[in-house]
Amino acid sequence: MWARSCWKLRVADTLTLHEDPRSGNCYKIRLTAALLGLPLATRSYDIMQGETRTPEFLATVNANGRIPVLQIGSGADAQFLPESNAACWYLAHGSVLIPQDRFAQADMLRWMFFEQYNHEPNIATLRFWLRFVGEAKLSAEQRAQIMAKRMAGCAALELMDKHLAARAFFCGDGVTLADIALFAYTHVAEEGGFGLGDYAHVRTWIARVEALPGFVAMT
Amino acid sequence: MWARSCWKLRVADTLTLHEDPRSGNCYKIRLTAALLGLPLATRSYDIMQGETRTPEFLATVNANGRIPVLQIGSGADAQFLPESNAACWYLAHGSVLIPQDRFAQADMLRWMFFEQYNHEPNIATLRFWLRFVGEAKLSAEQRAQIMAKRMAGCAALELMDKHLAARAFFCGDGVTLADIALFAYTHVAEEGGFGLGDYAHVRTWIARVEALPGFVAMT
Repeated sequence: MWARSCWKLRVADTLTLHEDPRSGNCYKIRLTAALLGLPLATRSYDIMQGETRTPEFLATVNANGRIPVLQIGSGADAQFLPESNAACWYLAHGSVLIPQDRFAQADMLRWMFFEQYNHEPNIATLRFWLRFVGEAKLSAEQRAQIMAKRMAGCAALELMDKHLAARAFFCGDGVTLADIALFAYTHVAEEGGFGLGDYAHVRTWIARVEALPGFVAMT
Repeated sequence: MWARSCWKLRVADTLTLHEDPRSGNCYKIRLTAALLGLPLATRSYDIMQGETRTPEFLATVNANGRIPVLQIGSGADAQFLPESNAACWYLAHGSVLIPQDRFAQADMLRWMFFEQYNHEPNIATLRFWLRFVGEAKLSAEQRAQIMAKRMAGCAALELMDKHLAARAFFCGDGVTLADIALFAYTHVAEEGGFGLGDYAHVRTWIARVEALPGFVAMT
């Protein structure tokens, strides 16, 4: 079992999240910080307006033109860390959100890589296309991918549901970064047209994550 | 600087890689084991023949129907670890292939998540489609994605090239798992129609990785 008191960490440098509040990838980092009790400043960008593709953003925050980026420190010594799951890893360093056992730690990363490869490109992308862009504004190429992304997203949810049938969290006995990474877009999957009715274990797990001490909602 | 003598680790359990030898994701694990001097048995599957979707494979090796999977131990106590980068993490635990510094470790994972999100789905997928499936056998939906994957793959290579302009390896002073993860499909990118002629720093870095003590080639 985990005790929230274990999670108190000190980060001497100020932490700033460069984010779009609608993004589940950004939310992962806010949720990790909240569960750990770490103060986190935010700076918002509107990705629909190309605010992460400006020359200034590319030169100083992330040459890859994407959010989230976790900024550690400020001024000339600031360090910038792109990729949501890497930022969560930085925040959770040394906490119970990362298991110390060799296999368990690798297994947690396994679910985080699964999230970025099998889950996010399907479930988050359909949510973005259908809820924020709008189906009428999709390109023909995007529209041609909807069915494949729908099937791949359902396969990811089914795999999660089977895995959760006999366990409370994805790895070991307590919540880890694997749960945070997968929770972000799963709990809003219906915004991408994914019904969670068939995935009872996923729904129970969502409620379990929402009941964690320190939990913060996405919006 | 790194010294290969630091890399000697002991893994009491036997290690078996479930793989398709043509897969760069599988090669990452073989390369990590070789650089660390870890013995690794292999069991081959032909993904073109659906050998990773059989009921037996799904029930015992990976419910996600994919390779690579790293098997640790054997018999009833065997543990199975899918996801190439998670398997590399397991093998390299405690070695110099994973930096211990908090930021450097997260930054290494940043490049490994970049690899799975921005690099592999474009560069590896086009290699698979064009070299192994064959353009004539692609579906209309796949063919419609070639241009977008070509552009996204070039953007990934350009980002890597800029990053490598002032450094020998992706993170810190020495080779890490970030280099291994990105090397796997970059050094065969031309098989997917990606010319490396414009990416001089990437080409120098490829030669640097190939010169590492213990390096093994893909085929």
